[in-house]
Amino acid sequence: MPLRIGIAGVSGYTGVELLRILTAHPGVQVAALAAGQQAGRSLAQVWPGWTGRLDLPLVEVDALAGAGLDAVFLGLPHGVSAAVAPALLDAGVVVVDLGADFRLRDPAVYAAAYGPHPCPQHLPQAVYALPELHREALPGARLLACPGCYPTATAIAGLPLVEAGLADHVVSDCLSGVSGAGRKAGPRNLYCEVQESATAYGLAGSHRHTPEMEQTLGVPVVFTPHLVPMVRGMIATVKVRLLRPVSQAELHALYVERYRHHPAVIVRADPPQSADVRGTAAAHVHVAVDATRGFATAVCAIDNLGKGAAGQAVHAFNLAMGLPETQGLPLVPLLP
Amino acid sequence: MPLRIGIAGVSGYTGVELLRILTAHPGVQVAALAAGQQAGRSLAQVWPGWTGRLDLPLVEVDALAGAGLDAVFLGLPHGVSAAVAPALLDAGVVVVDLGADFRLRDPAVYAAAYGPHPCPQHLPQAVYALPELHREALPGARLLACPGCYPTATAIAGLPLVEAGLADHVVSDCLSGVSGAGRKAGPRNLYCEVQESATAYGLAGSHRHTPEMEQTLGVPVVFTPHLVPMVRGMIATVKVRLLRPVSQAELHALYVERYRHHPAVIVRADPPQSADVRGTAAAHVHVAVDATRGFATAVCAIDNLGKGAAGQAVHAFNLAMGLPETQGLPLVPLLP
Amino acid sequence: MPLRIGIAGVSGYTGVELLRILTAHPGVQVAALAAGQQAGRSLAQVWPGWTGRLDLPLVEVDALAGAGLDAVFLGLPHGVSAAVAPALLDAGVVVVDLGADFRLRDPAVYAAAYGPHPCPQHLPQAVYALPELHREALPGARLLACPGCYPTATAIAGLPLVEAGLADHVVSDCLSGVSGAGRKAGPRNLYCEVQESATAYGLAGSHRHTPEMEQTLGVPVVFTPHLVPMVRGMIATVKVRLLRPVSQAELHALYVERYRHHPAVIVRADPPQSADVRGTAAAHVHVAVDATRGFATAVCAIDNLGKGAAGQAVHAFNLAMGLPETQGLPLVPLLP
Amino acid sequence: MPLRIGIAGVSGYTGVELLRILTAHPGVQVAALAAGQQAGRSLAQVWPGWTGRLDLPLVEVDALAGAGLDAVFLGLPHGVSAAVAPALLDAGVVVVDLGADFRLRDPAVYAAAYGPHPCPQHLPQAVYALPELHREALPGARLLACPGCYPTATAIAGLPLVEAGLADHVVSDCLSGVSGAGRKAGPRNLYCEVQESATAYGLAGSHRHTPEMEQTLGVPVVFTPHLVPMVRGMIATVKVRLLRPVSQAELHALYVERYRHHPAVIVRADPPQSADVRGTAAAHVHVAVDATRGFATAVCAIDNLGKGAAGQAVHAFNLAMGLPETQGLPLVPLLP
Repeated sequence: MPLRIGIAGVSGYTGVELLRILTAHPGVQVAALAAGQQAGRSLAQVWPGWTGRLDLPLVEVDALAGAGLDAVFLGLPHGVSAAVAPALLDAGVVVVDLGADFRLRDPAVYAAAYGPHPCPQHLPQAVYALPELHREALPGARLLACPGCYPTATAIAGLPLVEAGLADHVVSDCLSGVSGAGRKAGPRNLYCEVQESATAYGLAGSHRHTPEMEQTLGVPVVFTPHLVPMVRGMIATVKVRLLRPVSQAELHALYVERYRHHPAVIVRADPPQSADVRGTAAAHVHVAVDATRGFATAVCAIDNLGKGAAGQAVHAFNLAMGLPETQGLPLVPLLP
Repeated sequence: MPLRIGIAGVSGYTGVELLRILTAHPGVQVAALAAGQQAGRSLAQVWPGWTGRLDLPLVEVDALAGAGLDAVFLGLPHGVSAAVAPALLDAGVVVVDLGADFRLRDPAVYAAAYGPHPCPQHLPQAVYALPELHREALPGARLLACPGCYPTATAIAGLPLVEAGLADHVVSDCLSGVSGAGRKAGPRNLYCEVQESATAYGLAGSHRHTPEMEQTLGVPVVFTPHLVPMVRGMIATVKVRLLRPVSQAELHALYVERYRHHPAVIVRADPPQSADVRGTAAAHVHVAVDATRGFATAVCAIDNLGKGAAGQAVHAFNLAMGLPETQGLPLVPLLP
Repeated sequence: MPLRIGIAGVSGYTGVELLRILTAHPGVQVAALAAGQQAGRSLAQVWPGWTGRLDLPLVEVDALAGAGLDAVFLGLPHGVSAAVAPALLDAGVVVVDLGADFRLRDPAVYAAAYGPHPCPQHLPQAVYALPELHREALPGARLLACPGCYPTATAIAGLPLVEAGLADHVVSDCLSGVSGAGRKAGPRNLYCEVQESATAYGLAGSHRHTPEMEQTLGVPVVFTPHLVPMVRGMIATVKVRLLRPVSQAELHALYVERYRHHPAVIVRADPPQSADVRGTAAAHVHVAVDATRGFATAVCAIDNLGKGAAGQAVHAFNLAMGLPETQGLPLVPLLP
Repeated sequence: MPLRIGIAGVSGYTGVELLRILTAHPGVQVAALAAGQQAGRSLAQVWPGWTGRLDLPLVEVDALAGAGLDAVFLGLPHGVSAAVAPALLDAGVVVVDLGADFRLRDPAVYAAAYGPHPCPQHLPQAVYALPELHREALPGARLLACPGCYPTATAIAGLPLVEAGLADHVVSDCLSGVSGAGRKAGPRNLYCEVQESATAYGLAGSHRHTPEMEQTLGVPVVFTPHLVPMVRGMIATVKVRLLRPVSQAELHALYVERYRHHPAVIVRADPPQSADVRGTAAAHVHVAVDATRGFATAVCAIDNLGKGAAGQAVHAFNLAMGLPETQGLPLVPLLP
């Protein structure tokens, strides 16, 4: 019997991607949809592309705790997840949170980036849901804190270097599609301000994802996010000054070995482009050594809404619930 | 036991979309891939996004007839399909041709657009594979001639008006994404020549799809194709001078009734945009009456590689082989 | 001595394009900038790209009448122009209005599209500022009503056919870049809703530009606007059922002759693309005959912010003020 | 009397941008156009957007030396410039080379990146034409070696840090529009392969622009170029580990002071986006300090065809010929 699941925030970009993946997932049944200010409208009004394909009303987020669900995916702004998660957990519902509220273990670090934490008592039970790092901790977890898109791409690129003791800090530059800015209108997502333009922002450690990266990698991260004119997709290039010489062959082998048993990660001999993983929960990664200057550069391509959000959340959910790891996971891209 | 199928032309845009759909189709097994000049290379070399996901060699097209397949999808240039189809048919393989070679019933009409027909003897057995027009003729068909993208969108928009005797000619303007021009480099698909630019071409009846539209609709079609800066997607707006007055409510009801039993077509009360059907085999259609001027305008949105090519081919294949009509068909869009 | 001019609405897309053109115009001095809600801010705050290039404060629109200006360009929403124009005209300032308020001669037609006209007493002195139609009426004009982008492109394409008595109605399909929707956030200009998507809207005579087209062409116009994913640019394709046979050569000659003395219009033997006129006040036009079906199709490419707005306004202003017709006019494109 | 100039390579993207700038430049007359394989065709055939605007034939590059010109701009592939420059210099023509042939002072460094240098005897007289670095050396120069786009953006961002002794190496990540790949078809400029995708390439010191950057900055450069889906524009973010602590205010003041007398460079208090300088010869630069991690990040935005190619070449040409520094230079952007 399929698991009954709910999606909160289905009117947003992450939410509708969750809907696409979960309605095609053979192990689950999408039984409830919630959408804050859009509650009461039909799915077709919010997403005309879904007209005639699914007949579920959009309810209030608060209604999900009493809906007899096995799990709820939260695609909500930070602060809101923390407000609704306790009631769900109390009702015995597994919470898969795609927001920032349960990612940082240390409430003081959270407070510095987002303000006082709304429910620090739940932090200890949260599992940081990066399958390539915490696969052992996921089975049986009741509160999954799914990583942000920038931290995911930076981690996949940088973990092998750091774990091998090759680096004591990393410089990460990420390029993101515009969907990362969400569906609400703002200066960063008006078509004519974004199209045919690239920019860097959140410089010098000011982006909220920096502490999350440092928690995962355990070394200082000099992080620069860039916004580029595309809807989906993300590239992270991680540069490290090598603490000891290493050959190209050794480095490539290190990555192959690190990800051998992780089906979402493909190690490639050439640099990937973000379209290679469009619509998927996969990451493509490549590493190159610059012997002359003593640096290594690792490149990771993900879909910011796939491996960077909805796809990875379903991956972690599968592991948490004891489903086959890749069941229902989109792993082949929409091309071109 | 799943049907064993092959794909010819997998290195092209239509071919790789067929691959994505058919590898997810529960009723088939993709057993062979062919790709003209790319034969001998691996799938990952031709499409790096498929690295690690499918381990099939790319063979010569000629090798497919002897591969023990139930059906072969041909995503090949016109002229090439007609050269390889006979051997496949002789070997008892069902041929699903996505090219132009078997679409036009009259070899003289074909000759005027493409040159002398290479195998006119096979034309009589070909079924024009528009499910919304020829669903009765598809079961058991051995040679499926899948419609072009422009004719598909124009037909879905225009058929109800023409069938109801409301129009004696139609004016069709279609907007196409660039993937319709194929993967070979040319003046119409260089990034810097196409981006931030729109154009009309093939004016005044000179586009090869015009005869196909007139065969389907049975009235003269004044067709203007436009190229717009996007990868996928197509909009057709069909304008007709109404032969008798008709109300908005009647017209809408006419469309609802016409497509009631056709799962790929959604009739909407508002104009669709092409992203509403991105990655799908669906068509969204809307009609509006201009009582003042005595015209009706119908708009159809499809994905030119989905309902306009690969998706519709799989739909027709299902009907031909007796599989459930929507089995394996992508009907919900990738959003945003 | 250069003419002293002001620009109202410089925080909008049309306004900043006026600024670019007029600061490079040798016959004028940009002496005042106004910008409704942005008054009090600096130009660099509103348009960071202008940082360090022009040091003028943004004032209230009402301050322009007393600023000792020779002319003011109004890039304002409809209704607002009509509210500010009278004071400017009373102060002896020439008004170049890029909005809709003075385009329609008949206040009843205006009322049907926009609501009651705010100052019908000024309509008689307004000159519809399409240089290719009203060049004789422009010299000495004090109130210029600049055409909309859709009507401009449709007029340039369709006028020769209608004037020659070849058509009793026209079917116009226009493709527009997104900048036509303005700088305010809305469903039609969020990046992720627009990118990789095309749509039709304002069907069946419901777009406000239809009456303007019919006023200019003098025949019914079946108009369908389309939105395509680019910032600037517009293509109009005008289809007419020919009232008498005409050859391709005759038709081409008709267009060449019609526009021989109009420097903004280039008649071409092949269909133009919108990028050919990017950033310019020019229009490229092409016509083709379909003898089989008895139709002609004319294609016009403009920049919706150039010939469709700011560029054409400066062109008309030159004629009104007795400056050389093409002085300061951008006529060569930014390529690629 | 204006200087008579010629443009070689006008069929390319850099060439047509030179044409746009130089035909608007009051100090010069464009007297000859050359275009390798396109010689004999008209400008309108190569660039339809120029139809009716300039009536000059496209001649062979070799014809330029005898055409009585004061200067020739070379927008040619590397190797070709070196083959044609000597004859021009011998004829007393000033050569402004936008290719790579005369940028590197050391022929051995050139050879490692491009192969044996075709005319090393001319290297000593070449002036590296970065106005912000070599303005003193430009007046009277006869052979100008214009910097590449990546080195220009990296230099503007990084020079103040290196010159102030704050860094002993820099990490530069650049995002480039697709026009940098030129007009010839290839895997990096097919629309459907590039649109909605980002990538990194030329990793680990393998890009040919790295030695040029190191020559300019005098320290090792860890350079990663990225390709993003836009036609024009470039962002460079330069990260340095600070050799001594420095405050945000000091760093900003350092940049303001460094570029005070350089009209092409605008120092900003916020990160620029590439559209801010679209179509211009300007650079916008911003610097931020990360006191926690001891790093500084500087961002530079340019138009890769403007400040990164044609615009900067005209700037340097003005200085070389004794014209006013900013005469004819496009310094205000095309917005939006």
